[in-house]
Amino acid sequence: MLSIILIGTGNVSAKLAQAFSHSEDVKLLGIYGKKERKGEILSTGHEVEEISDIDESADIIVIAVHDDAISDVQKQFRSSNALVVHTAGSIPMDDLLPIKRRGVFYPLQTLSADREVDFNTIPLCLECAETEDRKMLEQLAGTVSESISWVDSGKRIRLHLAAVFTNNFVNHMIRQAEKICEAHDLPKEMLHPLLDETVAKAKILGAANAQTGPAVRGDRSVIAKHLKLLPDTAQQELYKTISVSIQNEYESQL
Amino acid sequence: MLSIILIGTGNVSAKLAQAFSHSEDVKLLGIYGKKERKGEILSTGHEVEEISDIDESADIIVIAVHDDAISDVQKQFRSSNALVVHTAGSIPMDDLLPIKRRGVFYPLQTLSADREVDFNTIPLCLECAETEDRKMLEQLAGTVSESISWVDSGKRIRLHLAAVFTNNFVNHMIRQAEKICEAHDLPKEMLHPLLDETVAKAKILGAANAQTGPAVRGDRSVIAKHLKLLPDTAQQELYKTISVSIQNEYESQL
Repeated sequence: MLSIILIGTGNVSAKLAQAFSHSEDVKLLGIYGKKERKGEILSTGHEVEEISDIDESADIIVIAVHDDAISDVQKQFRSSNALVVHTAGSIPMDDLLPIKRRGVFYPLQTLSADREVDFNTIPLCLECAETEDRKMLEQLAGTVSESISWVDSGKRIRLHLAAVFTNNFVNHMIRQAEKICEAHDLPKEMLHPLLDETVAKAKILGAANAQTGPAVRGDRSVIAKHLKLLPDTAQQELYKTISVSIQNEYESQL
Repeated sequence: MLSIILIGTGNVSAKLAQAFSHSEDVKLLGIYGKKERKGEILSTGHEVEEISDIDESADIIVIAVHDDAISDVQKQFRSSNALVVHTAGSIPMDDLLPIKRRGVFYPLQTLSADREVDFNTIPLCLECAETEDRKMLEQLAGTVSESISWVDSGKRIRLHLAAVFTNNFVNHMIRQAEKICEAHDLPKEMLHPLLDETVAKAKILGAANAQTGPAVRGDRSVIAKHLKLLPDTAQQELYKTISVSIQNEYESQL
């Protein structure tokens, strides 16, 4: 049985609390953070305490707060005997120094308050400074996910960058398509089968093999036609930059 | 029973032949096109004929060839009594003029030789010049898909543009993420749960509500960190342009 304390009341903390509550091998001693969301998070029935009342006997303290707040929060735990981990993709483990027993527990997923996720499929990227802590961190991860990897800080920040393309930028492309539909009274749901197949193909074939369209074909007449149809220079700029990027990428492979 | 002739032996034609072969209400009289792929397409057992042998009694002639070839191919059917349709997203119906009974049968999906698709879920965008042909075209579409819309040429080209963002550009974003993983020995499959959730969220919440990340938060320190990590100016340029586009889009909504 691992005893843990969660710091933070944002989405990551909420989803972790929920996931841990389903495990018989984890005892959540408490959650600390902004009060207004505690009730919602603690529908699992775990006790909420004041930061001054931290149970020092916890095995692991999980700091699941905004990136900018980690360095401040970690100061509270410098004399702790627990393993102290943060959950951020782009923050090096050593930002927890001088804590000796430090580590990272990074769930590679976009977590929102209003979305149920199957935590079991979320890749958990682990790192720790002390070899003796590996087993315990892996044990904690194993209680909530079947996808566990050891990823050092250098690789993790690259993974976080790749996640920006995969999530933020993919979403922005979908947004542009939605805007075109909205402007012309076309139901955006018409694009959903294409979106599903796009992702399925990229996953199965690899995106390089799945690339199609006017840019990779070098079809300038369709590109020119599309640019004329885009209503503002901002969308035109976006379309142009991405098309040039596609052309350059596949030209150099010829 | 509708009798049809397919022109072209590319992916669209192949998938259409396959889909029609499952319907008892369609009789495929023949397929014309480049010989080398005929066998593959005609695993459904339909007869292949020479272009000069076209069965003039067909109800519908479906021109499923490359965009650039449509104007040439349609000349063959100017004296035909059949309804003549093309399958291209970005070509106006009137490019089939002077054919009187002309129309469009556009499947809004990416079709590849090596991918099985459920044609039933593919949105079919229909258009025809003669009101009397609407029923027949809708009947043909109904034999293969449950998703049928009447979309005129002006809207269809916008839909095709939206499809470029949805398919080509989304795929290019996924490719950038893959490249980062490849360069750092990270299995790209680690990103698949994130990709699935990204698409699920965009579909359910709408992409505008699903946008997250450093650009929409205006988090310049993470953006600067990411730009330094990108190995070449091309990827940096892409990252910068999309981040600026995200910032502008959501700033103006504040």
